[in-house]
Amino acid sequence: MGEFDLIQRFFLEGQGRLAAGDEVPVGIGDDCAVINPTPGMQWLVSSDMLVEGRHFLSTVAPERLGHKALAVNLSDLAACGATPRAFTLALSLPRADEAFLAGFARGLFALAQAHGIALVGGDTTAGPLNICITVMGEVPRGQALLRSGAQLGDDIYVSGTTLGDARLALELFRGTVRLAGDAFESVRRAMELPQPRVALGQALRGLASSAIDVSDGLCGDLGHILARSGVGARLEADALPRSATLAAQDLALQRLCTLSGGDDYELVFTAPAARRVEVAAAAALAATPVTRIGRIEAEPGLRLFDAQGQVLPLALSSFDHFKS
Amino acid sequence: MGEFDLIQRFFLEGQGRLAAGDEVPVGIGDDCAVINPTPGMQWLVSSDMLVEGRHFLSTVAPERLGHKALAVNLSDLAACGATPRAFTLALSLPRADEAFLAGFARGLFALAQAHGIALVGGDTTAGPLNICITVMGEVPRGQALLRSGAQLGDDIYVSGTTLGDARLALELFRGTVRLAGDAFESVRRAMELPQPRVALGQALRGLASSAIDVSDGLCGDLGHILARSGVGARLEADALPRSATLAAQDLALQRLCTLSGGDDYELVFTAPAARRVEVAAAAALAATPVTRIGRIEAEPGLRLFDAQGQVLPLALSSFDHFKS
Repeated sequence: MGEFDLIQRFFLEGQGRLAAGDEVPVGIGDDCAVINPTPGMQWLVSSDMLVEGRHFLSTVAPERLGHKALAVNLSDLAACGATPRAFTLALSLPRADEAFLAGFARGLFALAQAHGIALVGGDTTAGPLNICITVMGEVPRGQALLRSGAQLGDDIYVSGTTLGDARLALELFRGTVRLAGDAFESVRRAMELPQPRVALGQALRGLASSAIDVSDGLCGDLGHILARSGVGARLEADALPRSATLAAQDLALQRLCTLSGGDDYELVFTAPAARRVEVAAAAALAATPVTRIGRIEAEPGLRLFDAQGQVLPLALSSFDHFKS
Repeated sequence: MGEFDLIQRFFLEGQGRLAAGDEVPVGIGDDCAVINPTPGMQWLVSSDMLVEGRHFLSTVAPERLGHKALAVNLSDLAACGATPRAFTLALSLPRADEAFLAGFARGLFALAQAHGIALVGGDTTAGPLNICITVMGEVPRGQALLRSGAQLGDDIYVSGTTLGDARLALELFRGTVRLAGDAFESVRRAMELPQPRVALGQALRGLASSAIDVSDGLCGDLGHILARSGVGARLEADALPRSATLAAQDLALQRLCTLSGGDDYELVFTAPAARRVEVAAAAALAATPVTRIGRIEAEPGLRLFDAQGQVLPLALSSFDHFKS
């Protein structure tokens, strides 16, 4: 038995046995997993591939990497309002490093258990480090939150209170910004331990008119909603929620990080203005703060305003000039 | 828009639009794909990750690589008797090489169309070449072919007529064997263009007692059936089907390639001896030749016999000593 068979046994089959049950009659260890879809539900699927240097830094602790690899996938289910059901993990590793694998598995399965989602299959191979997860979930027929439903006059919301922190952390690692120890650790957590907004997504079923998760930056991801919905928006740039750490930075950096930082894994969503009380109730039910940050307008495109109602340059919506 | 956004558009969204329809209400372009499972069916899932140098050689034509990446995944569905429904593709590429992508897509989608399976989601990123596909399919409740159902006295079958050719091709590339042009091309096709036995798998539902696809070598994969079913087997080593090209090699090499070659993507399955006529009818229905190659026995483990009924050394069941 080669070292990669050992990984497969340790890492995958152990969890596969846990997974097998009435909902997942066959878990890891056969050619396919067998899952019983819930009658009346639609099936949702998303795949993400994580590569070192692009989606995580070599400095990340294995446990946090395991968490993040699943978190970014759960975030896609959250954006559709889905209930997580199962996931597969394909892993390419340069070598079978037991400490790495143990940490990675710990972070991965802690998050999986928190969301009641089973690892049902996967693959391991030798090769450059690469993590590919496919998540599957369910929603009642026709209730998936999509990018295409935003309507004229809808409010725009974003979840969480630390938008932009993940990007601030990246800039710290890049050396373009400096921060003291505690502040560094808190933004580093935002980058390495994003919390997928699964409960919020489910609470917004039948309420939000559109939703997306913030992976590439708020403005860019909101732009996908606008394009698919055939509408425009006005965004109150200074109303965006941010941490005390980020709020202590230059205003220009604050705006760049919140508007176009990326890697936040918060939800941006729209809902009719008449349903503000229900949105607040959904947020409370999900124990996830949300902030109203703008409004859907008929005119295509995105317009940014500051706290004084002055127009801000759209260049803020892209971090490109900041990139190395 | 970066070059990888362009790939995503060209390569994924174009097909996603084709895929969207009643069975797949939301294809590529949202956070998740939305699929309508067929009522009464169970959902089957499998993921495979392909890395250059381990799963394919750098010499492979992009079109064949696209075919093979999906074929090895469809082969897992075939081994379970599933009807293919959808797949996701995650792709890490060193650079956006248009000729490579066009060829890869051509091979991938030709096979996808042949099996009526839709690309519903995916991911593209810059990084070392890595292809991760997750396939999903369906079977009527309780009818998935598993590794665990082989019974004492069952016949053992293998599909196809070119078992071992893929391994012979690998040895040619490694320079341990030499072959003339035409013969080289035919075994190279076996390695680069495996045909997943999807129709046969479906025809064997309710008939085969167990099944697996041959990816790591016949003996090793049959070993998984034996272990999971708690039985042993006798295998007629010289009854294994092989091509004229392989049959022209040394008998020792023939045995190594057929018994433990790997990368064949044929089905090995078991069925009650009383149902031989039905197995022949299923093979005819699927237009896929099958050969009876052994019998399930009570004594654990695998025993190999030659054409004269003499015991062969079990070392033949592993290619390890042959590896570079």
